[in-house]
Amino acid sequence: MESYSFLFDLAIIILTTKALGIISNKFHMPQVVGALLAGLVFGPACIGVIQNNDFIEITAELGVVVLMFSTGMETDIKELKESGKSSFFIALCGVLVPLIGGFLVAQYFNQPDRIPSDASSTLFLQNLFIGVILTATSVSITVETLKELGRLKTRSGNAILGAAIIDDILGIVALTVITSFTDSSVNIVFVLLKILAFFLFAAVAGVCFYKLYSWWSELAHRELHRHVVFAFAFCLLMAYCAEELFGVADITGAFIAGLVLSGTKKSHYIAAKFDVLSYLYLSPIFFASIGLKVALPEMTGTIVAFSLVLVVVAVLTKIVGCGVGAKICGLETYESQRVGVGMVSRGEVALIVASKGAALGLLGSDFIGPIVIMVVITTVITPILLKIVYKKDPDMISTIDDDGFAKNYEIQERLRQFSQTHSKI
Amino acid sequence: MESYSFLFDLAIIILTTKALGIISNKFHMPQVVGALLAGLVFGPACIGVIQNNDFIEITAELGVVVLMFSTGMETDIKELKESGKSSFFIALCGVLVPLIGGFLVAQYFNQPDRIPSDASSTLFLQNLFIGVILTATSVSITVETLKELGRLKTRSGNAILGAAIIDDILGIVALTVITSFTDSSVNIVFVLLKILAFFLFAAVAGVCFYKLYSWWSELAHRELHRHVVFAFAFCLLMAYCAEELFGVADITGAFIAGLVLSGTKKSHYIAAKFDVLSYLYLSPIFFASIGLKVALPEMTGTIVAFSLVLVVVAVLTKIVGCGVGAKICGLETYESQRVGVGMVSRGEVALIVASKGAALGLLGSDFIGPIVIMVVITTVITPILLKIVYKKDPDMISTIDDDGFAKNYEIQERLRQFSQTHSKI
Repeated sequence: MESYSFLFDLAIIILTTKALGIISNKFHMPQVVGALLAGLVFGPACIGVIQNNDFIEITAELGVVVLMFSTGMETDIKELKESGKSSFFIALCGVLVPLIGGFLVAQYFNQPDRIPSDASSTLFLQNLFIGVILTATSVSITVETLKELGRLKTRSGNAILGAAIIDDILGIVALTVITSFTDSSVNIVFVLLKILAFFLFAAVAGVCFYKLYSWWSELAHRELHRHVVFAFAFCLLMAYCAEELFGVADITGAFIAGLVLSGTKKSHYIAAKFDVLSYLYLSPIFFASIGLKVALPEMTGTIVAFSLVLVVVAVLTKIVGCGVGAKICGLETYESQRVGVGMVSRGEVALIVASKGAALGLLGSDFIGPIVIMVVITTVITPILLKIVYKKDPDMISTIDDDGFAKNYEIQERLRQFSQTHSKI
Repeated sequence: MESYSFLFDLAIIILTTKALGIISNKFHMPQVVGALLAGLVFGPACIGVIQNNDFIEITAELGVVVLMFSTGMETDIKELKESGKSSFFIALCGVLVPLIGGFLVAQYFNQPDRIPSDASSTLFLQNLFIGVILTATSVSITVETLKELGRLKTRSGNAILGAAIIDDILGIVALTVITSFTDSSVNIVFVLLKILAFFLFAAVAGVCFYKLYSWWSELAHRELHRHVVFAFAFCLLMAYCAEELFGVADITGAFIAGLVLSGTKKSHYIAAKFDVLSYLYLSPIFFASIGLKVALPEMTGTIVAFSLVLVVVAVLTKIVGCGVGAKICGLETYESQRVGVGMVSRGEVALIVASKGAALGLLGSDFIGPIVIMVVITTVITPILLKIVYKKDPDMISTIDDDGFAKNYEIQERLRQFSQTHSKI
């Protein structure tokens, strides 16, 4: 390490995400919107004061891991189980509808006289691949927004969390199926077995850690730092195993680690410490890094048209797919709307999938720009849309599930903090 | 970023620094010792499970910046000013004595029939350069140890802090003088002017930030997150400017930023949040990274002998130099001992100086190994020695300054936390 420019980069990121976050708040938008814009405005896409680099990218990845770990700790495992079936159905609809929508849009634009493609696969596979890109939900933006609005612990919040995890698994399956057509080394059965193995592993590791931790925490209950540190190590190991050993997303491993801890006595204390790590350091870098990755492409008229259509289809297919799925599972209409909107954001997952596809000859180079635009717009509008759908107060009778809980949540939180500080003194 | 191995590295670092820290505690040594050993044992020097890399190195640098920032916030600016004169004298003696000691040791060993040197400078400059390497104190280990022992806010603690900052400046001057003999682009007058300019800049920036912050914090006094975030941005900018614009150490800039904030109302709240960031994430990485940098060199009998003599001289010259300096300035004998011991640790500064010297032909390649060994040993024994000298209880009459304060400190700290949590609810 020779240069100290990381100090400058960090200062700009931490300052601008907060400043634009405050400005967003003044316009009645969640702070997340401002944080996302900070990376766009000060990154290579506009002013170019800061550039993306390995350090920022790794720290950002750690940021989303910690975010999902905290979310796991705050999730009620019982409620998540209860919403399991409907989550699966929501995720399935939310994968199929965008898959078909993306395929149809690509079918229209991916032609030699419209947008000529330089990819090596058949047109059918290429078009299907654009559908696959549209399936990937990035739940972290939604989670942060719901936390900010105090609505994470609602029925719709739980449904979104469950559906996002399953969406991730279905996304891996879809990606594997399509790449197995071009890359003979990819075996779909093997991938499915690995996913299955991961959940077995997670269950065994979770139970072992829980028992070991419960036994140990009786011995060392006064040394609170240790609880936080060992919890962090467990989170990191689960995230690592998920990604490297089983091919599942690291955030899924971190979320499960959080779920395991959610049942322990010290989980609120631990979660409070990770909150500090997130808001002070990791989250600003994560949100800014999304914007930093964006370099706006050269555009022709047809590519602009394709981009716009892709954005509209991306937004609508998720809202409709997940919303209808939720409605069929018995959620209220306003809850179904919320679930649909919560799944709109695509984020970095779509970009990773796209770059894999480009390497395999499944995606023409002219299509990468519109996908970047789709990711940016879906990511920035998700928190704005969420604020709108969570603001609408449904009639009083139906507020018991979704709103009653949220209103109580803040009061409960304060009471908990009060009793905690008293037990510490 | 393609690999997720950073998750594994972080898990091992966070787990082993804490585990070895707890074991150190069982042997009545500060936790810092265990954290330092973790990097040595699990790094390339022994087991080799984790390797140093850019991400770890940058995060470690940020760790020491935040550590010195927190230290600045906890420092009483008035007491630091009062100890200013004696700090300068302590630092001066603590630079001159090791400089001469190192020169004499090198004079004996740096001969063709003992350790042949492949450096291009004259033998006189080479030997002087080894003296320069011995002048650089790394105060962060001492700061962490004194924090752990609850003794940072003592007269000796203040003297160490002040002397370490001045030591850093004197070290830069010494390095500049010697490199100006081999590198014609280095101009000592220019370097001195830049150092002077830095302190002017720091004073102006500090006053401006203090006024702006005091005005703003009246407006936004309820949004506590913002205070912490803007304080962090100020710290990062000061660290960056110190290093990149003025050639002063980044930690000096961060320490001054902390000093500026120490006078504000919210400084205890802000310091508590940075404590979490440090113990949970940044500090373990910083301490482990010191050990990770160590790759033990091939050794001949003479090189082993040189290493041992160098270690002894490095330890004794700092204890004697700073200790005698402190005694002359009117500190009690036991306080002078503490100051001397607190300045023993060399840490990463000596390694950076050594690698610069090697590049300029001032240091033979066979001399790098012994310097690494000297750095490791002085770093690991400093917290052990500190615990010993801070344990010895002097007779009651003289405890008012150093010990009375420390004993009160913990009680005051608890009271402050109590009143803080009450004002929050």
